Parts: sequence; C-alpha cells; structure tokens
Amino acid sequence: MAAIGAMPEIGGFRQKSRRSFVTLILTVLTSSQSILIVWSKRAGKYEYSVTTANFLVEALKCALSLVALLRIWRTDGVTDDNRLSTTWDEVKVYPIPAALYLVKNLLQYYIFAYVDAPGYQILKNLNIISTGILYQIILKRKLTEIQWAAFILLCAGCTTAQLNPSSDHVLQAPLQGWVMAIVMALLSGFAGVYTEAIIKKRPSRNINVQNFWLYVFGMIFNAFAIMTQDFDAVMNDGFFHGYSLITVLMILNHALSGIAVSMVMKYADNIVKVYSTSVAMLLTAVVSVFLFGFHLSLAFFLGSTVVSVAIYLHSTSKARR
Amino acid sequence: MAAIGAMPEIGGFRQKSRRSFVTLILTVLTSSQSILIVWSKRAGKYEYSVTTANFLVEALKCALSLVALLRIWRTDGVTDDNRLSTTWDEVKVYPIPAALYLVKNLLQYYIFAYVDAPGYQILKNLNIISTGILYQIILKRKLTEIQWAAFILLCAGCTTAQLNPSSDHVLQAPLQGWVMAIVMALLSGFAGVYTEAIIKKRPSRNINVQNFWLYVFGMIFNAFAIMTQDFDAVMNDGFFHGYSLITVLMILNHALSGIAVSMVMKYADNIVKVYSTSVAMLLTAVVSVFLFGFHLSLAFFLGSTVVSVAIYLHSTSKARR
Repeated sequence: MAAIGAMPEIGGFRQKSRRSFVTLILTVLTSSQSILIVWSKRAGKYEYSVTTANFLVEALKCALSLVALLRIWRTDGVTDDNRLSTTWDEVKVYPIPAALYLVKNLLQYYIFAYVDAPGYQILKNLNIISTGILYQIILKRKLTEIQWAAFILLCAGCTTAQLNPSSDHVLQAPLQGWVMAIVMALLSGFAGVYTEAIIKKRPSRNINVQNFWLYVFGMIFNAFAIMTQDFDAVMNDGFFHGYSLITVLMILNHALSGIAVSMVMKYADNIVKVYSTSVAMLLTAVVSVFLFGFHLSLAFFLGSTVVSVAIYLHSTSKARR
Repeated sequence: MAAIGAMPEIGGFRQKSRRSFVTLILTVLTSSQSILIVWSKRAGKYEYSVTTANFLVEALKCALSLVALLRIWRTDGVTDDNRLSTTWDEVKVYPIPAALYLVKNLLQYYIFAYVDAPGYQILKNLNIISTGILYQIILKRKLTEIQWAAFILLCAGCTTAQLNPSSDHVLQAPLQGWVMAIVMALLSGFAGVYTEAIIKKRPSRNINVQNFWLYVFGMIFNAFAIMTQDFDAVMNDGFFHGYSLITVLMILNHALSGIAVSMVMKYADNIVKVYSTSVAMLLTAVVSVFLFGFHLSLAFFLGSTVVSVAIYLHSTSKARR
C-alpha cells in the first residue's frame, strides 16, 4: 500500500493502470474473503466475537495507514497534503460512514426475523441498484442510459447466479423484510458513496491520511459495538476467545480489502467497486468448485453470461464518452 | 390478411407501422398458441394424429392465401407481381424450408432419448443464437456489437425465465443430446433465415403468392409425414379421429401465426421474429397466472428483466444506425 500511496500524481496512462491495479487487487481480496468464510464455516461455527474481529480490522487498517505514511514522510517529508493533523472542517464528515455501517450491521440482526439467510443473500443484490441511484444523486455524476442498462443487468445477473431451489421463498417474505432490505441497501449504498465524496473532495490530500481518519472512527464505533453486543463474552472469556488461524487470516484479509476499497474510491469510483465485488462473487463460485467440490448450476452460467455482457456494455459505453 | 396484402407500397411511416402491426399480431398469436397447448394438455393427452393437424394447418394457410389473392385480383387486376403462375427459377427454392422443418421434426422424436422434456425446452433457446449467426451469414446483414450483446441477453433471459428446479439435469445430458439440440437449432434457424431470403429476393412479388408456394410444399411434405408416421392410425380410425374443439382452435391459430411469421419475414426480419416469440413466451406465463393459477418464480422475474433490457438495447442500437 505504501508504494501506491507514494506514487506521485502522473499522466493518464499511469492513472488508468493504477485504477486497474487497485480494482484487480480488490477483486482478488473480496473473492478470497468469501472463500475464507466458506472455509471457516466448514471448520465449524464462529466461536469468536464478531465485534472484536471487526474492531481489530479497523485497528489493523489504521496501523497500515500509519506505516505507509511513515514511509512517505521519510521520502517526501511532511507536507500540507500528507500531514496527519487536521481541521474540524475536514474531519467532521469522517464519522458518518462508520455510523451508517454500524446502523446497517445492527439492522442485520433483526432482518433474519423476516427473511432466511439464502433470501438475505438474494436481497443484498439491491445494494447494486441503491449504489447506482445514490452515486448519481450525491456525486452528481450521470450514468448514461446504456450504463444504467448494464447496472440493471449486473443486479439481475448476480441474483440469477445465486439462485437455488429455495430462492423463491424470498418472494413470500413479509413486507417488513423487504422494507428492511431496502433500508439496508440504501444505508450501505449511502455509506459507500459518501466515503467516495469525502475522499474525492480533497483530491490532493494523501489517501493514507484520509484512510487513517476514516479508520479511527471505525475503531470508535466498533468499540461501541463490542460494549453493547459482546461485553459479557469479552469480560468472561477474554477479548481473543475462540480465535484460530483462520480468524487471523480473515482479519488480515478484511483489513487489506478495506484499504483496497478506499483505493478504488480514490482512483476509480463506487460503480467500479460494485463491478469488482460482483466479479469476485462469480470467481468465488468457480474457485469453490476446485477447493470444495461445489457444483455450478445452469442458473450460475446464465447469471455469469448476463454479468459478462453488463461489464462489456459498461466498458464500451465508457469508451464512447 | 387480404387488407395487408392489398396495401400498396408506401412511405416509411406506413411501412414502420405495418411492421409493428404484424409483429404485434405474431406476438399475440404465438402467446395464445402456447396457452391453447397448456389447455389441451390439461384436457387430456393428444388423441389426434399430430401429422394430420400439421397437414391441415398448411392446407388452411394455402386456402387463406388464395382468398387474399382473389380479393387483390378483383381490386388491382392480375399483374406480373400478383399472378400465381411461376417459373422454375422462382419456385425451385420453395421446397427447401419445408424439407428442413421436416428433418427437424423427425429429429425431435429421437432427441427425447437423451434429453427430458423440460431440458428440451431449455435447449430450444439455442435457436436464438443460431438464428443470429445464420442471419448474419446468409442474409449478409451485420448485427452491431450492441445488437449481438442484446441477442445473447435475449437467449440468457429466456432461459432464465424458464428455469425450474429440474433444469440442471440438462447440464448432465449426454453429448449426443447436445449435438442433436445444436443441429436442430441450426436447421430451424436455417429454415427461418432461408424463408426470409426467398421472400426478400423478390420484394415486389405479392406476399400471398410467395406464401401460396411455400405452403403448397408444406402440404406435400406433411402428406409424406402422415404416410410414414401415422398411416395405420389414419387408415383404421379415420383422418379426423380424436379431433375436438380445441384441436380445431389450435389448427386455426397455427395457420394464422404461420401467415403472421411470413408477414414479419417480408416487412421485418428474423431478428424481430425472435424477439416477438420471446416476448410471447413471457406473456404466456403471465396470462397463465390468471387462467391456470400458475405461480411466477423469481427466475421468471429476473429473466423478464434481462429480456426487457435486451429489447431496449436492440431498439436504441437500431435508432442510432
């Protein structure tokens, strides 16, 4: 990450290849993240507190941003753009994404009263549409009609690829389930787009400083989550109870992909992020065939075809602008 | 039909509205055709000989073309373009589509040794792709990249809409089943595109004359099919054994949609025909909800979304040319 942070602002080609690089990294990390989750589920139930793991992810990202900054200060010296100290005007917006994610994660506990887990996986694809809508409203950048068509296809394709015999249950989910799913999609879309707005508002500001402040508030909000949800477990069994090698790998992976998401926000945008995580979902399924002997369904092939066409349409539409 | 046949060649708007009209008629007829099939299946098994019904469809189309021609002769008189007599050079290609359909229908009896009925429904969507490829090769008209993207989406969307819990069986179908399905798709695509080539080769020739000759050969080939497949049944139980009101309605519907297909070939093309029959498939499912209490699956909604985007892409791409 330090190498990327230290890279000076240069011409269009360098910028484009950097954008492709961070997108690729994000895809690989997101994909291996899902594989770790499958692996950990096979190994048994989660025995650690999820909130402590989330806190450690934020702390690790904070530490990595500081390491990157130290290296930059050593090469470039401390400048206005890379100094850590900040103003109230700059920092006041940083808690917002962390707060939004916290609310979303709290809602997640309640939605399962109305929707089962596979149904929730299906409904999560609403994130794609909410991100598109909020991207256009908040960042005031217009997607072309073809790009919207591609985005709708991306959502339909991802959902198709995840279809299984019990998917139709979701159509019978009560209204409360749908409303909560839509609210969660809006919260998560808003958090993503708002983070991009914060990062892009000061283009010359070093990304590691921006990340540092984002993650500091992430730590604070996750500490709050530990207190409210896992206080007893942590007090009785200790902070690290139930941690295993795979837990450590998952924390490491989440931290790195969190940083990759920030890089994609800085050098590309939320739209690219959505495409990247969608491709990662498909990639995970293919890799799982080899790792865990999963079978690919006809629905998966059809969904992947639709997603591929969506990516093609998005890229040609971009080239035409 | 006579009214359409008698319509003189006029400006672009009239031509466009005529194209939309025949496309709409084809969609409605194809859709009601499937509903009749569902209805007849609910009423019990087919008890009549399918080959005799097919023969009557061709005979009825022939008769309707003649009636239309009689009316045109009365208004316009007999001209070079609407006279029934023909040359060897004009008529020699007319048997080819009928022969291709015959081979395809014979193959249909054998494919069920390798693929079950729902699997065959899925594989029939290969027709969409084969029609696109042969359209480009035989009619030498290039589809744009966006139009190809739309066509792939149409195929994926139709297949998705038809997904059911047993669809995955088709992936385990033996190679012979796949090869036969591909051959059948190519035969049916070739017959369609070749018919368009025949009809469009002489643009000023009256469509009813062209239809008359196509259907004469259809009758001959279907008479051959009666002889080889249902000779005993017809001899013992009579030509019309097992006919019911619904059989008569199905014959009427097939005859009218056959003529509508010819009209679409004349005034639009095979691509429009494929879109029209795909929309008819979706329409049938929606109507069946009300008529037969069918349930729409999540896969159906996703497939319909993808088909809608495909239609949008095809139409915007056309407008840009």
